[in-house]
Amino acid sequence: MSDPSLPEPQPLQALIDALRRLPGVGVRSARRMAYHLLQHDASGALHLSEALRHAVGDLKHCRRCNSFTEDEVCGTCLSPRRDPAQLCIVETPADQNMLEASHGYHGLYYVLMGRLAPLDGVGPQELGFQNLLDRACDGVVQEVILATNFTAEGETTAHYLAELLRSRGLRVSRLARGVPAGSELEYVDAGTLAWALMERRDSHQD
Amino acid sequence: MSDPSLPEPQPLQALIDALRRLPGVGVRSARRMAYHLLQHDASGALHLSEALRHAVGDLKHCRRCNSFTEDEVCGTCLSPRRDPAQLCIVETPADQNMLEASHGYHGLYYVLMGRLAPLDGVGPQELGFQNLLDRACDGVVQEVILATNFTAEGETTAHYLAELLRSRGLRVSRLARGVPAGSELEYVDAGTLAWALMERRDSHQD
Ligand SMILES: [Zn+2]
Ligand SMILES: [Zn+2]
Repeated sequence: MSDPSLPEPQPLQALIDALRRLPGVGVRSARRMAYHLLQHDASGALHLSEALRHAVGDLKHCRRCNSFTEDEVCGTCLSPRRDPAQLCIVETPADQNMLEASHGYHGLYYVLMGRLAPLDGVGPQELGFQNLLDRACDGVVQEVILATNFTAEGETTAHYLAELLRSRGLRVSRLARGVPAGSELEYVDAGTLAWALMERRDSHQD
Repeated sequence: MSDPSLPEPQPLQALIDALRRLPGVGVRSARRMAYHLLQHDASGALHLSEALRHAVGDLKHCRRCNSFTEDEVCGTCLSPRRDPAQLCIVETPADQNMLEASHGYHGLYYVLMGRLAPLDGVGPQELGFQNLLDRACDGVVQEVILATNFTAEGETTAHYLAELLRSRGLRVSRLARGVPAGSELEYVDAGTLAWALMERRDSHQD
């Protein structure tokens, strides 16, 4: 597939290039998106422009759980209806949402915003494990529930964290293996997640 | 797959909603895109925001060929190296680019920015066929080459336009069927397109 030779007008080319930075968007998708917005949804384009600006400008990481929030500490972390003795560690806010939808958990969360991926240069430092340790060792948390994905990288992350947190005297558990091996939390139904939460077991030393 | 119950912070939810308006982007993709931009590519997000604003603000339709341009008339339409007796009709600027890449055509273009799709409410009026007729009947154009896609809708558009333009005394041809039936121009290699241009034949009355 050869590259088109006709130069696009600069603002169109710039838009296509900018859209390509979105994950999973190649040059053809980016071009389709650009044409669609310009031809059929200029208001959608301006809407997206504003939403991007506001999100980048207004969102920060919650100082307690590391998820996105407009405030210093998010509403979940401040909720008095949550059990502060339990801390559930997830990879992304989407995973947190899925666990909430299972209605099987009422403790607090810590969102890693990623997973250990040594090949991609994502280590404990990049994920800010010191911040997580400080949070988990606040003296109130008694049990840490590892709810990283059941993928290779998610399992590696869970093993690493289990050792780290157990060495600090915390009880560490892992979601039960009701979650099908190799799959990602986002794609598991709420019932299975509720069951996996109930059946969670203490992490064993390797 | 249940909907997540945890409310996202408003600017994040707004960004996810805005990203969902992109063609081919569902709620999960939109969320992944939002997380990625906020976590790993804030500059990419601001870049995209600016690109959207500039593209919507600075681009308009060329008065001659209907493609996107920053000026009243685009560079291709103004080029003295183009044969103004030939007018090639395509669905999108991407299709125009693919024909250019074939190096088999040196006339001018008209970009429909779509195709007839009666079921979606896209008729001759929505595609501005009057504008195309005015362009094709400028007294200089002698041959119109129909290069719409070889899909059902593209073929319908070609048949409709062939009749319309022939009734105005224009010679109308269609890309040769070297383009595999059912496929879209964007996905055809340049050599096949060059061949299809060379082998183009007059449109027959049904
Ligand atoms: Zn929080
Ligand atoms: Zn033009």
